[in-house]
Amino acid sequence: MEISEFSFTISPMFEFQITAKNNRARTGIFTTPHGDLLMPLFAPVGTQATVKTLTPEHLKDINATLVLANTYHLYLRPGDELVRDLGGLHRFMQWPRPMLTDSGGFQVFSLSQTRKIDDDGVTFKSHIDGSTHRFTPEKSIAIQENLGADIIMAFDECADPNNGTYIQQSMQRTHVWAERCLHAKVRPDQALFGIVQGGISPELRTQSAQFIASLDFPGHAIGGLSVGETKAEMHSMLEIVNDILPVGKPRYLMGVGSPEDLINGILRGVDIFDCVLPTRLARHSAAFTPAGRINLMNASYAHDHTPIDETCFCYTCRNFTRAYLRHLIIAKEMLAATLLSIHNIHFLVSLMKSSRQAILENRFASFSADFLHSYQPRPKRGE
Amino acid sequence: MEISEFSFTISPMFEFQITAKNNRARTGIFTTPHGDLLMPLFAPVGTQATVKTLTPEHLKDINATLVLANTYHLYLRPGDELVRDLGGLHRFMQWPRPMLTDSGGFQVFSLSQTRKIDDDGVTFKSHIDGSTHRFTPEKSIAIQENLGADIIMAFDECADPNNGTYIQQSMQRTHVWAERCLHAKVRPDQALFGIVQGGISPELRTQSAQFIASLDFPGHAIGGLSVGETKAEMHSMLEIVNDILPVGKPRYLMGVGSPEDLINGILRGVDIFDCVLPTRLARHSAAFTPAGRINLMNASYAHDHTPIDETCFCYTCRNFTRAYLRHLIIAKEMLAATLLSIHNIHFLVSLMKSSRQAILENRFASFSADFLHSYQPRPKRGE
Repeated sequence: MEISEFSFTISPMFEFQITAKNNRARTGIFTTPHGDLLMPLFAPVGTQATVKTLTPEHLKDINATLVLANTYHLYLRPGDELVRDLGGLHRFMQWPRPMLTDSGGFQVFSLSQTRKIDDDGVTFKSHIDGSTHRFTPEKSIAIQENLGADIIMAFDECADPNNGTYIQQSMQRTHVWAERCLHAKVRPDQALFGIVQGGISPELRTQSAQFIASLDFPGHAIGGLSVGETKAEMHSMLEIVNDILPVGKPRYLMGVGSPEDLINGILRGVDIFDCVLPTRLARHSAAFTPAGRINLMNASYAHDHTPIDETCFCYTCRNFTRAYLRHLIIAKEMLAATLLSIHNIHFLVSLMKSSRQAILENRFASFSADFLHSYQPRPKRGE
Repeated sequence: MEISEFSFTISPMFEFQITAKNNRARTGIFTTPHGDLLMPLFAPVGTQATVKTLTPEHLKDINATLVLANTYHLYLRPGDELVRDLGGLHRFMQWPRPMLTDSGGFQVFSLSQTRKIDDDGVTFKSHIDGSTHRFTPEKSIAIQENLGADIIMAFDECADPNNGTYIQQSMQRTHVWAERCLHAKVRPDQALFGIVQGGISPELRTQSAQFIASLDFPGHAIGGLSVGETKAEMHSMLEIVNDILPVGKPRYLMGVGSPEDLINGILRGVDIFDCVLPTRLARHSAAFTPAGRINLMNASYAHDHTPIDETCFCYTCRNFTRAYLRHLIIAKEMLAATLLSIHNIHFLVSLMKSSRQAILENRFASFSADFLHSYQPRPKRGE
């Protein structure tokens, strides 16, 4: 096992320091204009400039650091220019810590019935009112500069990994767009991350990681995973890509948020994760525990006077019984979603903290093995 | 103007002290097993053992003291015996300050299609599953003793005030039930309040206030108002009743919560108010301001960078713009209801604090006149 300490100045306003390594797993500090990010980290998602059902105070209590917001949604509503005029996203939603915006690409390409892609960009219809809009790499960067997050993302195409011919064409388009995003970017207080695509093809992933790494982005993301491939395929792609991406820049696995995926990602050198999973599960009565997920709507919890997790220090577990949470769920009270969201995000944020500690103490191999042994994931990926 | 100081020991666990009087308006301290209540006060409503969309921490930050919960709802779901087995309502919902439960009567009588009243009690069908249940005065007290609030209410009938013949019969039934509740009550750590009925008839209200006052309850409530009568009728009934009820016991005007009704109630000697209005308005995008209500869905707030109320110190006003709140509303984000509930309850709790201060400083006449002059209530009562 090696313990390394590296420091990389990425730009005048961003710095990355690796504080420890256990095989591929590593801890680091990413310095941004809104504060330091201790990594590995999990970022909760505030799609519409709010992490659903939570106040910023809740998120601070949970010790969340990075919060993600979605460019597609905020462009359509309330509009990126309005957010800019009101002082940017941090001020608008009162999140004083670092933020990240995606490029809008993923959402736009998900509108499979109502969008049309060409080599210059994509034309799509709003899911809100059906109005027609167009994103190009330059437009995505302009919107993200209006929103003002600390980390912004290159405009990429996330194609179906099982569509072999198309995935190559799509990857090459993503590469051209990555260069256009770099050229379009103006603000010095935002770090633009490039995105590696290439589906589940080792050759394409290699090619994409090499090309994206060559562009000298301040950080890199791995896109197009957790979209239908197997866990083994995801792990294999992570290993291929992270062995190519430069060590001295943060690595972000997009849209991944189950506890086992986080641990498996860290084992393969990932530093940043984000996902709607903890808040979405909360709205469907499900909670993470060290043994796996439970659903609090279950009648077996009706008289249960214990918290969700006896070992958890979150506000919900320090105060409320499973019986009370089940009552709120059955009575359709909104507080249920709030209390479960607090717990589920806290669970992932704490898992990242324990992982950092284990890496710093050079015991992540046993820590991760123990966790994966105890935690029973759902048999299927349909989370 | 007279400034008085009285202290009344009501029972070993309850004490009432009047600290100041301005005409009929008064300030007081009601000591309960879960702490002192400074009055006049506004109690937010936690119908199903949760003040909708808020955590207990939010309510503590707002300086709410008394919280009301509904016996009818909790009896049906999750069941009063379950709440008792889990340590009572305070522990179940984690509210460490005083609580009040109603008798269940108001809700049961509201089920006009599916309930049948006789002199012994009322048989009704659950709004949840249609199952048949029966409340009697003794049953209501037994449920409230299981729930364990500090203040519990006598089982009464709240009849249509415009039904002249029936209202007298109903009042007499309420009087018999009040005596049965007093006899049924066992727990020494709960104060049982009697309820004055009598519709909008000065004669019946006089008769009811005299009878209920004669029973030596530790506190009194005025029921059957804010159910369709005019403001002038409400004010007249309050004056008649409060001139009869003994000075040395707290007076609670049930189900009243608009700012102007609170001020008008205090002017007529009321100490305690409760209402779902602030949280219900919040879920319909409306917010109290010193000038009257505003609805934040209005397009005029889309670019408004000011808080709901520049003079307000609540969490919402200290942090968020009208533009952000409007965005949350338009985007159907649950956080909107949370942030507006915080503001609206804070508005009423603060109005009660300012009222207490004005009474203590012997200037409630001018304070109330100024408030009622500035605050524009809705033209209609349909809140």
